[in-house]
Amino acid sequence: MFKLTIITIGKNKEKWLQEALFEYEKRLKNQAVFHWVLLKDEKSLIKQALKEKSFILLDLEGKELDSPALAEKLEKLLETEKSQLSFVIGGDTGVPEVLREKALMRLRLSKLTFTHQICRLILLEQIYRSFEILRGSGYHK
Amino acid sequence: MFKLTIITIGKNKEKWLQEALFEYEKRLKNQAVFHWVLLKDEKSLIKQALKEKSFILLDLEGKELDSPALAEKLEKLLETEKSQLSFVIGGDTGVPEVLREKALMRLRLSKLTFTHQICRLILLEQIYRSFEILRGSGYHK
Repeated sequence: MFKLTIITIGKNKEKWLQEALFEYEKRLKNQAVFHWVLLKDEKSLIKQALKEKSFILLDLEGKELDSPALAEKLEKLLETEKSQLSFVIGGDTGVPEVLREKALMRLRLSKLTFTHQICRLILLEQIYRSFEILRGSGYHK
Repeated sequence: MFKLTIITIGKNKEKWLQEALFEYEKRLKNQAVFHWVLLKDEKSLIKQALKEKSFILLDLEGKELDSPALAEKLEKLLETEKSQLSFVIGGDTGVPEVLREKALMRLRLSKLTFTHQICRLILLEQIYRSFEILRGSGYHK
């Protein structure tokens, strides 16, 4: 079972977001457990992220991958990181440099700016999609 | 009032998606009306899109913009297209070449592949974000 931690600022308070995230967590329940660390501000985010052994940083200045390349990258990282991965979603005001230096990988979802909420949804769907790509299902066409 | 049409395949059946789309439509209700054309297959999508005077095509091989550039582009297109814009979200199997030829603009949301549902949500949020950028609000930081 993989242990995936998502560290971000603000609550998952929108009902639609809760439902959507729940849907992907449910689909992944035999493969991964999710742990959400929802923090109140950037200072707490940095503190929490620096406690992690390692993490993937969502960063508008990071590298953009297509879904098969992301799946391959996650597979490798899950191996080197012993089945545990953390993801850090940065703040509104950009990503603190100290987190960039420590990140295992800096991932850009898009050149477009998304809300935290939409970033969470995209991240969960891409994790699910990665697992489906790796097991060769028909989900990713 | 702007008239925005979104042409895509499949229903907005997920409850979370309905709620999320409704939220952005509500926020935009004084500026734009949305018309959803939900079709059953790619053939119907092509037929419908070719009936449109013009449209923006969501295309994994299109151009990726950041949100301010997208806002500027939409502003220009809303002017040249007399306040009416259509958006076509392509099928799972890629985008038909005939649509590429006719598109006003080919927009890539990301190198990542998203579900139709998530494309709809991202599109609506980016339209809302564009309007907020253009009116200079604090939404887009």
